[in-house]
Amino acid sequence: MTTLQDCQALDAADPLRPLRAHFTLPEGMVYLDGNSLGAMPSAAAARVADVVTREWGRDLIGSWNSASWFDLPQRLGDRVATLVGAGQGEVVVTDSTSVNLYKVLHAAIAMAQQQDASRRVVLSERANFPTDLYIAQGLCAAQGLELRLVDAQDIPAALADPHAGGVAVLMLTHVNYRTGAMFDMQATTAAAHAAGALTIWDLAHSAGAVPVDLQGAGADFAIGCGYKYLNGGPGAPAFVWVHPRHADAFWQPLSGWWGHAAPFSFTPEYRPAPGIGRYLCGTQPIISLSALECGLDVFRAAEPLGGMAALRRKSLALTDLFITLVEERCAGHGLALVTPRAHTQRGSQVCLSRADGAYAIVQALIARNVVGDFRAGDPPGQADGVVPMPDILRFGFTPLYLGFEDVWNAVEQLRQVLESGEWQEARFHRQNAVT
Amino acid sequence: MTTLQDCQALDAADPLRPLRAHFTLPEGMVYLDGNSLGAMPSAAAARVADVVTREWGRDLIGSWNSASWFDLPQRLGDRVATLVGAGQGEVVVTDSTSVNLYKVLHAAIAMAQQQDASRRVVLSERANFPTDLYIAQGLCAAQGLELRLVDAQDIPAALADPHAGGVAVLMLTHVNYRTGAMFDMQATTAAAHAAGALTIWDLAHSAGAVPVDLQGAGADFAIGCGYKYLNGGPGAPAFVWVHPRHADAFWQPLSGWWGHAAPFSFTPEYRPAPGIGRYLCGTQPIISLSALECGLDVFRAAEPLGGMAALRRKSLALTDLFITLVEERCAGHGLALVTPRAHTQRGSQVCLSRADGAYAIVQALIARNVVGDFRAGDPPGQADGVVPMPDILRFGFTPLYLGFEDVWNAVEQLRQVLESGEWQEARFHRQNAVT
Repeated sequence: MTTLQDCQALDAADPLRPLRAHFTLPEGMVYLDGNSLGAMPSAAAARVADVVTREWGRDLIGSWNSASWFDLPQRLGDRVATLVGAGQGEVVVTDSTSVNLYKVLHAAIAMAQQQDASRRVVLSERANFPTDLYIAQGLCAAQGLELRLVDAQDIPAALADPHAGGVAVLMLTHVNYRTGAMFDMQATTAAAHAAGALTIWDLAHSAGAVPVDLQGAGADFAIGCGYKYLNGGPGAPAFVWVHPRHADAFWQPLSGWWGHAAPFSFTPEYRPAPGIGRYLCGTQPIISLSALECGLDVFRAAEPLGGMAALRRKSLALTDLFITLVEERCAGHGLALVTPRAHTQRGSQVCLSRADGAYAIVQALIARNVVGDFRAGDPPGQADGVVPMPDILRFGFTPLYLGFEDVWNAVEQLRQVLESGEWQEARFHRQNAVT
Repeated sequence: MTTLQDCQALDAADPLRPLRAHFTLPEGMVYLDGNSLGAMPSAAAARVADVVTREWGRDLIGSWNSASWFDLPQRLGDRVATLVGAGQGEVVVTDSTSVNLYKVLHAAIAMAQQQDASRRVVLSERANFPTDLYIAQGLCAAQGLELRLVDAQDIPAALADPHAGGVAVLMLTHVNYRTGAMFDMQATTAAAHAAGALTIWDLAHSAGAVPVDLQGAGADFAIGCGYKYLNGGPGAPAFVWVHPRHADAFWQPLSGWWGHAAPFSFTPEYRPAPGIGRYLCGTQPIISLSALECGLDVFRAAEPLGGMAALRRKSLALTDLFITLVEERCAGHGLALVTPRAHTQRGSQVCLSRADGAYAIVQALIARNVVGDFRAGDPPGQADGVVPMPDILRFGFTPLYLGFEDVWNAVEQLRQVLESGEWQEARFHRQNAVT
């Protein structure tokens, strides 16, 4: 049986332990919800105050040059690029994940159809994050295309099926938001390309959480989120990557002035910027962008300690430990592991299911200062052959600020919540799930 | 001749003078660029610090509920609504002006074509702000429509021309970014409707600057900017309004989860929220949104002093005074007034032109702590019959924080720059215009 002392020994041997000092978290809290909203880097308060009082308040319009506001989407994009296997100059930070998905899906469809107009299917996973499906529904409806949703394991067959109509674009989220299951990006991209389809990867639960190698996988397009594992602050702007082989090929549809080759020439004709610059649209929220820079700074501090490879090792050690401790210490309480055990198929979160009480158990844990979250299962009435997803207790593990004793404490609280039955108290049963 | 003492007397009698205390501006600066980036409300520093350290850092994910982050787009939208003649629940603050224009232009085209598929023209002003034209170019190209650009005075004829093909949408910026000329929204909307066209008004240089009555004008769609006269901070999110008679009629194309009727049900099928809520898309940058609330708070403080009507009276008095003083004290230096003299045709800025040196004169003024900006004239090679716009010295007047003595000081510095000829020094000639 694993002991508290074992966990403390792991912390003592952890080379990434110093990174915890880069964050401010409430005293005594075990924060397992960094996959919903990342914790605050301690530097953010001073950085944001400086942006507000000096860059905005004192230097005003001059800060577009003197504080390099102009370059912020590209400068932060270059920082994100190092975390996702993209080259310098290939990523911009801008807009929201949903808006960026619209841009790249529009471009990918145009590109696929230019090659073969008979390809009229956008293929995705049924359990993909809803906004991805909503954006695709809108675009497919507008363009008379079919959005086809299948279970993850059926994607290879759906790509290859010669009777099903040609797939133009395969659009997937790399790590599933509910289950924590991770696709093999390289193999899946290869299968898509073999079937003549382009790929879009949503890295919302990947960037900063698991090593990603967009270039190595030969991916076509990617988008991702700034406020989860990148710790950019609430609603931090998102990012978008387009493989250089495609970057100059199409306008994206949101052809605003910031994507113009010379935005401050104020010429009446749109002329897209070369490369990823054309995936910008309007003026970006500078204060929120600046906070994201603090989140990215922590990854820079992680570089000499081993960078994403070391973070991944620790993330797997944390999630392995959590699974082990739940199995050792919470057995007999009806919890089931939803997240894959295989390291190659797991993101940086662990999801448990339970036939009932998942929401209340999460609330009872929060009351004990262990913050995870609840994700509702599928409603009844799924399509034939679709196994509905159960209610989920979701625990995200951010190796930048979590230690092994935190995992012990989280499982110990979970054990107490289950053994005491306190989760059955009415106060934990108000339905109020947030992202 | 107007004297400094006259200006000081105007300040002494100004009922809006107390509002200046709501802003922090650099000592000694006359800031005439609030139409590019509004000044910082003094409350912004503490408000943003609280959002970062308490709402994000301490309360983390719980702030979606406890700090009402969920409602921020609607709550700020309701505040903007009071400034533009819209009803409560009709406006959301979200995304950028360019992105919001894409949403409403897409919806307006769909609506117009549903009524009459032969209408295939989007009509706008040739001198409209470029990003508006770029967005329209992209959409028109994608949908096989014609973007027709005419001079402002030719819009009524272009709407009525029976040989020119039906106009689906008239898309205009209410106050021109370079000239400060203002359309009669009511008359222009009526002319568009009489011709069977829908109207989109870009209020970037109107909201918070001039009284706007969207409902009274019977307008169809509007968008606007948070970082100019609303003083929301660099790149503050923008707003979008749709007349309630249209709000439920169409999906906007950026059908992300925040526009879903129940975003946190995570259902796979998109079901648009009723009303303006469906014009949201992704998660919003909360820190930047919160700063905008401080800008809107100043308008609330202006309410007991007479609100937008009083602000408009002062704005016209400021711009009248500026024109008078330039004519009295800078005569013989080749300056020409570009902004209309008629109050009904003037926004809250004054633009001057000069055959040469406009850029350098603006730079020399900035060196003297009078901050206006430069807007380049049209390049050579305009279409037949188009009179090119000259280079512009642009001065924005924000009655919330500018006084009459500020206007005196600005013109006095302009006079000295011109009389001394110092603007001809090489240091003022680097080309580096920013918005």
